[in-house]
Amino acid sequence: MLLRMSKEKPSRIEHLTTVYHGRVKFNDADPLGIVWHGNYLGYFEDGREYFGSKYGLTYLNIHEEMYSVPVVQSICNHIKPLKYGDKYSVKTIIIHTLAAKIIFHYEIYNQENELVCTGETTQVFLSKEGRLSLICPDFYESWKKQVGYDK
Amino acid sequence: MLLRMSKEKPSRIEHLTTVYHGRVKFNDADPLGIVWHGNYLGYFEDGREYFGSKYGLTYLNIHEEMYSVPVVQSICNHIKPLKYGDKYSVKTIIIHTLAAKIIFHYEIYNQENELVCTGETTQVFLSKEGRLSLICPDFYESWKKQVGYDK
Amino acid sequence: MLLRMSKEKPSRIEHLTTVYHGRVKFNDADPLGIVWHGNYLGYFEDGREYFGSKYGLTYLNIHEEMYSVPVVQSICNHIKPLKYGDKYSVKTIIIHTLAAKIIFHYEIYNQENELVCTGETTQVFLSKEGRLSLICPDFYESWKKQVGYDK
Amino acid sequence: MLLRMSKEKPSRIEHLTTVYHGRVKFNDADPLGIVWHGNYLGYFEDGREYFGSKYGLTYLNIHEEMYSVPVVQSICNHIKPLKYGDKYSVKTIIIHTLAAKIIFHYEIYNQENELVCTGETTQVFLSKEGRLSLICPDFYESWKKQVGYDK
Repeated sequence: MLLRMSKEKPSRIEHLTTVYHGRVKFNDADPLGIVWHGNYLGYFEDGREYFGSKYGLTYLNIHEEMYSVPVVQSICNHIKPLKYGDKYSVKTIIIHTLAAKIIFHYEIYNQENELVCTGETTQVFLSKEGRLSLICPDFYESWKKQVGYDK
Repeated sequence: MLLRMSKEKPSRIEHLTTVYHGRVKFNDADPLGIVWHGNYLGYFEDGREYFGSKYGLTYLNIHEEMYSVPVVQSICNHIKPLKYGDKYSVKTIIIHTLAAKIIFHYEIYNQENELVCTGETTQVFLSKEGRLSLICPDFYESWKKQVGYDK
Repeated sequence: MLLRMSKEKPSRIEHLTTVYHGRVKFNDADPLGIVWHGNYLGYFEDGREYFGSKYGLTYLNIHEEMYSVPVVQSICNHIKPLKYGDKYSVKTIIIHTLAAKIIFHYEIYNQENELVCTGETTQVFLSKEGRLSLICPDFYESWKKQVGYDK
Repeated sequence: MLLRMSKEKPSRIEHLTTVYHGRVKFNDADPLGIVWHGNYLGYFEDGREYFGSKYGLTYLNIHEEMYSVPVVQSICNHIKPLKYGDKYSVKTIIIHTLAAKIIFHYEIYNQENELVCTGETTQVFLSKEGRLSLICPDFYESWKKQVGYDK
């Protein structure tokens, strides 16, 4: 699955970044006492939703526009574990792409500010009828202009 | 919240019982190495869905009838822990009631056939418009006859 | 399972109350668009941990004392649904009991301050060796004095 | 993070493959009615554990050898959605590598035998003291011989 346009070098849009703060819940940790690897996709989603709430791009905003934006690829790299009770922060950075996609990069830091996890998700635009958009919908083009995506 | 009609003594309908077999997943267990207490409601749901698939009363069947059956009360009693890797069985028994409710009782056993958990859920009938049914919908009355609920 | 001492009328200790604020995550909601009933036990745990962090009674504090406090009973009553994106608050109140138990009562309110859910959990004290304490451990008696549990 | 040795072309060991059968649970699906993307990592784990139980490489086996095998990278590609009630199968294939890693590839198929999801996880060996093994532990070398990993 080709997820980025071939000649494009994706780049982070540093000014479109948020930092979400969380704390590891008891039920997030597994019998090894560390956060179960699959739960990081939830932490990414927390970061992504916080980004959306700050910049006006939540799932609810998007649904009003009659689109859904399913995740078609996720990648997660683990560097250090988080344990029950740890505080962490999720840095969410939008990635510039020419494709009709929303790409986020994530960095999770522990309370000592050490990088514990990085990741990336790619979302596409589906119309209400379930058709894949090959170009960005109007509302997303407007959003890009408004937040300075191409600056 | 009054969940049963006052003069009624609810009773188990022993012939409407199923036994579902499961195994504790890594991610079901918490840092103590035992199944997190909240996950038992998922085990109950597994039992309830298995009951539904055996007796023709799944969520999908019910949605076709334009009803949903939200859980309005759940109770869970823990007697022994289950650990990662344990096999268990969920005995699901429907409880007789005159009210417009579906009440299930659950018993979870470990691989030594010891009782580890009991519980109960109560569901009500909501119409498509979200209105609570004070009497059992026709499709449920038919279902009761078909399976011998009142026998 | 007898969960309270028979002659005792349990009462809420109103001055030992906390209010935790949360927001419904995308993944907390089910195909009906509402929070899956089992997830409320996680919301209760969020409330309970917040109570613990405010009053010095977290799982980590308790583990330092060589005890664990497994949930042996949970009850959850649903009055109204919460939907994806809703804000809610979890009021957590400790319940006075003479038994060697920790009993919490929970009330969850939506953003219109309507009561959507109530519940209760009962926890017991297990020593490091897995033995049930029939009397409250010393550290818990000290904690009770410190916070004015019996006042 | 370099996850494979540079000159090596990883290849699937086709004879070390299992197929696990599951059914989408109510609580696996999100408000869009489809399986939440993060839950596929749980489906991969189901496939991986089934592989382990068939070929004698479960987490419990590994813990007996005083190692843990945390997931350090996971990748998930979504092609089609799964809905509540759908049956699916998880094909789990071990990938040949010279590195001290366990790499699995996953393919999830729906009941029409259409490919809905692919993925990969990479696990490393951590000693009891939390030290990363740069070479495969003895027990894993023995396991490889036993199952014909290098054939």
